[in-house]
Amino acid sequence: MTSVELPTHPDASAARTAGIMKALVYHGPGQRALETRPTPTIRESGDAIVRITTSTICGTDLHILKGDVPSVAAGRILGHEGVGVIEAIGAGVSSFHPGDRVLISCITACGICEFCRKGMRSHCRTGGWILGNIIDGTQAEYVRIPHADTSLYPVARDLDSEAVVLLSDILPTAYECGVLNGEITPGDTVAIVGAGPIGLAALLTAHLYSPSAILLIDVDAHRLSIAERFGATSVVNSAKEDAVARVLASTAGAGVDVAIEAVGTPAAFDTCQSIVAAGGRIANIGVHGRPVQLNLDKLWDRNITLTTRLVDTVTTPLLLKLVAAGKLRPAGLVTHRFGLDDIMQAYDTFADAARTSALKVILNGRAAD
Amino acid sequence: MTSVELPTHPDASAARTAGIMKALVYHGPGQRALETRPTPTIRESGDAIVRITTSTICGTDLHILKGDVPSVAAGRILGHEGVGVIEAIGAGVSSFHPGDRVLISCITACGICEFCRKGMRSHCRTGGWILGNIIDGTQAEYVRIPHADTSLYPVARDLDSEAVVLLSDILPTAYECGVLNGEITPGDTVAIVGAGPIGLAALLTAHLYSPSAILLIDVDAHRLSIAERFGATSVVNSAKEDAVARVLASTAGAGVDVAIEAVGTPAAFDTCQSIVAAGGRIANIGVHGRPVQLNLDKLWDRNITLTTRLVDTVTTPLLLKLVAAGKLRPAGLVTHRFGLDDIMQAYDTFADAARTSALKVILNGRAAD
Amino acid sequence: MTSVELPTHPDASAARTAGIMKALVYHGPGQRALETRPTPTIRESGDAIVRITTSTICGTDLHILKGDVPSVAAGRILGHEGVGVIEAIGAGVSSFHPGDRVLISCITACGICEFCRKGMRSHCRTGGWILGNIIDGTQAEYVRIPHADTSLYPVARDLDSEAVVLLSDILPTAYECGVLNGEITPGDTVAIVGAGPIGLAALLTAHLYSPSAILLIDVDAHRLSIAERFGATSVVNSAKEDAVARVLASTAGAGVDVAIEAVGTPAAFDTCQSIVAAGGRIANIGVHGRPVQLNLDKLWDRNITLTTRLVDTVTTPLLLKLVAAGKLRPAGLVTHRFGLDDIMQAYDTFADAARTSALKVILNGRAAD
Amino acid sequence: MTSVELPTHPDASAARTAGIMKALVYHGPGQRALETRPTPTIRESGDAIVRITTSTICGTDLHILKGDVPSVAAGRILGHEGVGVIEAIGAGVSSFHPGDRVLISCITACGICEFCRKGMRSHCRTGGWILGNIIDGTQAEYVRIPHADTSLYPVARDLDSEAVVLLSDILPTAYECGVLNGEITPGDTVAIVGAGPIGLAALLTAHLYSPSAILLIDVDAHRLSIAERFGATSVVNSAKEDAVARVLASTAGAGVDVAIEAVGTPAAFDTCQSIVAAGGRIANIGVHGRPVQLNLDKLWDRNITLTTRLVDTVTTPLLLKLVAAGKLRPAGLVTHRFGLDDIMQAYDTFADAARTSALKVILNGRAAD
Repeated sequence: MTSVELPTHPDASAARTAGIMKALVYHGPGQRALETRPTPTIRESGDAIVRITTSTICGTDLHILKGDVPSVAAGRILGHEGVGVIEAIGAGVSSFHPGDRVLISCITACGICEFCRKGMRSHCRTGGWILGNIIDGTQAEYVRIPHADTSLYPVARDLDSEAVVLLSDILPTAYECGVLNGEITPGDTVAIVGAGPIGLAALLTAHLYSPSAILLIDVDAHRLSIAERFGATSVVNSAKEDAVARVLASTAGAGVDVAIEAVGTPAAFDTCQSIVAAGGRIANIGVHGRPVQLNLDKLWDRNITLTTRLVDTVTTPLLLKLVAAGKLRPAGLVTHRFGLDDIMQAYDTFADAARTSALKVILNGRAAD
Repeated sequence: MTSVELPTHPDASAARTAGIMKALVYHGPGQRALETRPTPTIRESGDAIVRITTSTICGTDLHILKGDVPSVAAGRILGHEGVGVIEAIGAGVSSFHPGDRVLISCITACGICEFCRKGMRSHCRTGGWILGNIIDGTQAEYVRIPHADTSLYPVARDLDSEAVVLLSDILPTAYECGVLNGEITPGDTVAIVGAGPIGLAALLTAHLYSPSAILLIDVDAHRLSIAERFGATSVVNSAKEDAVARVLASTAGAGVDVAIEAVGTPAAFDTCQSIVAAGGRIANIGVHGRPVQLNLDKLWDRNITLTTRLVDTVTTPLLLKLVAAGKLRPAGLVTHRFGLDDIMQAYDTFADAARTSALKVILNGRAAD
Repeated sequence: MTSVELPTHPDASAARTAGIMKALVYHGPGQRALETRPTPTIRESGDAIVRITTSTICGTDLHILKGDVPSVAAGRILGHEGVGVIEAIGAGVSSFHPGDRVLISCITACGICEFCRKGMRSHCRTGGWILGNIIDGTQAEYVRIPHADTSLYPVARDLDSEAVVLLSDILPTAYECGVLNGEITPGDTVAIVGAGPIGLAALLTAHLYSPSAILLIDVDAHRLSIAERFGATSVVNSAKEDAVARVLASTAGAGVDVAIEAVGTPAAFDTCQSIVAAGGRIANIGVHGRPVQLNLDKLWDRNITLTTRLVDTVTTPLLLKLVAAGKLRPAGLVTHRFGLDDIMQAYDTFADAARTSALKVILNGRAAD
Repeated sequence: MTSVELPTHPDASAARTAGIMKALVYHGPGQRALETRPTPTIRESGDAIVRITTSTICGTDLHILKGDVPSVAAGRILGHEGVGVIEAIGAGVSSFHPGDRVLISCITACGICEFCRKGMRSHCRTGGWILGNIIDGTQAEYVRIPHADTSLYPVARDLDSEAVVLLSDILPTAYECGVLNGEITPGDTVAIVGAGPIGLAALLTAHLYSPSAILLIDVDAHRLSIAERFGATSVVNSAKEDAVARVLASTAGAGVDVAIEAVGTPAAFDTCQSIVAAGGRIANIGVHGRPVQLNLDKLWDRNITLTTRLVDTVTTPLLLKLVAAGKLRPAGLVTHRFGLDDIMQAYDTFADAARTSALKVILNGRAAD
């Protein structure tokens, strides 16, 4: 297919016309730079070009910079989260128009393949997590979004951008991989291992199902204090005490109904398998770089369910609805704000969270949406 | 509570009156004997005494004899499977009467505790797998069954004892831990690792949900030939070929929707995690003596569900119904028959399955039911 | 079975010793009286005798007094709700002892029959709703509870009796028949037709699943004001405006995801079927005395689910846990309090709710529990 | 959007070039004609033009001819079922190419709107049942299919066209609205009211879940004999005996677990509500022209679930897989075959089923696919 004539949107900036923009570019392990790049154009009939008004940095971006994600080639514009305004659409896009305010999903989905049909958009045959990975991403002034009809979401004008941008990835990830896979139901006891942004997002969304207790486990006292502010029933500093012993003691030895792994390490996984009650669920969210030991000798007769999942973002419309209804308030996760021009500093701040206490770092575009 | 006066059943044998019976007794690792023991009597108001007419030997009994199950003390009568006739009931038993033909469940359940209430009878506070484990079992002329109302099942006169006795343990185990936990649905592709009695029982019950393909993997050519006779779509002899490669090739690289572990070894588990498709389920049935390696580095983003379970026998009434309706024909698993007096030989035959081709070995009591 | 020697509890009152007590007795349509009756004794091995410390009156009791429930014979002690203290137990009761504080379920369940096994305790072969119906009930000083092990629930000392007694019937009814059958999930729009005690209990328990909107429809302005206090998103006085038009307007014509019928009339049912969205659920709680018209000509292609249910009280332990955790606060439904000696006046107050604004009327026993 | 240049397929017939074709056209109640019409062309970027090789006539087409479906205007080409070959595609179609053999779904789905996202394709904002209804249909040489990527299904060359064309509508309708909504599980007792093509298709697909009994109820002895050939456990001729009494007697008074309404009349619905067991499901498939009486006075406490549904065709890929695997053999429903030129006679045959014993009538195109 050939590229099509782009409808011109009245908000199109001078840079857009000139065809250049600012973008954060990955240049191999440890190497990133804010550079000038050509603005993207429509390539496929299902594409949309979105002008980014709000973006953010994900823990995965830090993994990429460590060289842990081999699919990301040098020269790639990073970022898979964003809120923006439609600038142009391909001939096959039917549900969006230039000027529409949209949320960009971290998962691109064709809506056609067998995985999309069964709600496993994360494994879309021609999509999945590709933004800021195998195609250029959102930490830029503009981004090209393939399969726009099924990868973007309309955002009402009155919704707060900072809350909405957290629905690109972190909120659906915590909700789908942690809360839904953990099958949290009213009255459950829940333990979340890891009080970073993802663990806190799991805490926020776990409340939707009214568990009777939610314990947060982490080694960072500051993050645990935030967890308490976000409604954790109790917190355990695993640097200072035996988390497994503490959780078992607090549940009369039974363990928790749901253990959510929100770190991505063998140790965190081991905590989960040591505290889950007979009949309970372990819901893994963490990105793991190594195998773990699974104690099937202890668990084979314990009626345990263990789940893994890459976020499918099938709950994005629901989460938008809950934010609009005031039932979910994710903006409390935002700790820092930068302009796109200061993105190098934003990365520094986010990467040194132990010192800066950063959770989510907002990147503001030049113009509002 | 004190023991109560036993109603005398007209069928009570002379041995019963005399208070002695034959039983297979465990005397520590590698030691078993057919001995004379006192017949059991009612101890609790919920007890029933059952005269065993048909029993069988389970792979777990062999594990006990190897000394692998420390909860079993020397002196214990083995066996947790059986069909028989009610001989006597305690004052609190309301749904059975002497003379009733019954199936004994391998799981004893009070029906009252929080685990029983949620269908997790395997973890009953005062029951679970206790027969032939922490109380005397069914490889005897008589057995005492606690919580009789919720641990025995009425059996119609016209049902075949050899089919029914397989519903004590092996059929519900394969069905609940393998088929139901694996969430087999019509059209699924299923791989069962292990073609022993449990794997074959999983095959039999998997058919109830009309999967499009069922592959059986084992190292024993004879068992694989039986699997084919029981409707396996294809079989893989993992002693002769690379099972993982074969399964992946047969599914165009995708893997299977459901992988059932019916062996209980790290190798069998590893096969399961290597062949499960994105979005698939691994249902563990095997009894594991060691931890396994779980490749979370490969599986964290594959949307996998892994389950473990000790059979809850909540499907026993359903399985009885299916046998009665001719929808399930488990009797094909029976390869050998012995009288209780020949139980020592029966154990030898069952333990040497590689040579004898034994699957399930039936033990017949002295009188029919 | 014969009755057994009762263990005597130190708290047993003089009346207990004398074998007489006060009770509210039904004498046919329109006829009730507070009378002296013999105290109940253990009849079956599974029975318990409970000294009532807190009880209440149900809308069903008013139906009985109108003569609408033919199974209730003259001479019957009414009442199927209560909190109390175990006074005596039969030989087959294993999980309770004299002195235990308990909640009495409106549903008596054997825990053995096929209905109990599948969680349909409402249809228990030897139980179901029998208290204050076909056996004597709880509006008395003492009550006999059959199948005590599976029909009573332990209550921690620190829980408020007035909150707990609402878990005998009204809370599990609203939760199981309305909220669970309605499959309320986060973000749903819910309409509850009827803001009486049951409708308000549905409102309270619907919050557990974080719907985005809950509309209450009633003709009584006072009840609607209470609904607002209990967190209704909006209320509609159907005496003053067209409820169907209003609900459709508020949902952009789509209708609600869940419509809960909490009245029991053809008109309330008709409202539900007129406001349910395509793909939505109608959950009936109301007790209906007449058939209704179901508009299958409009609904056959609307992907609707309609459910009916008599409460199974399978969620009673969960609801107790939620009250203990502070996640559910039903005591706000209590508007009036009387001693058992003033029960005639309590009935008058409850029956004239339009004037007295009564919701739930508490009956206090002579001694605390 | 403007129409695009059509890629020319080598198989394109002379008629195609000439731009005319034969089609069955509706001309108002009782009026139909086989006429010459212009061949369809691509209008939207998501369109495909399909050359029909196999089609059939649906009971709904007869309803249209009676004037019962007001949305169908005079001049409309009828038909919503078909197998064929892609002739041309629009610019936005990504998963099909000219020459591909395809199954046409009776439901057109955009794959984008909120209904498509939740699997309710029947209510697609720009689709649903539109073929042969509000746009021209499949009883022609060619048809235009909007949203081709999500409304067509690839068909392997070796699959029988007559089996596959039944997957356009009747098989997914029976399976989704009857079997899945009825939640048939192994061991269930099922009654299907109506042994026409839809009822028989429900019977065929019910077998996938191994119910223990399936009863078919109809007034036509011939259809009942076919039901027996298709594996009905028993049949009831409701013209000759009291079907309700017979079903209740055969279930010891309990009723059936699942009652499937496959007629669309108040009488058939009434049979369903009279035979459903406590805890059972009524799954409506029938198209109803009038309201029915729902006996809530008898059912309010019976724990019944009643469902309605317009087929969403979400199971079409699964059904294709089951046909390919030999697990489903729908071709037995075909009783008559005609060429498109004889479609007037085909309609006569299908409409007079009582005399012709027609079930499904196949229409063959001029060329094979």
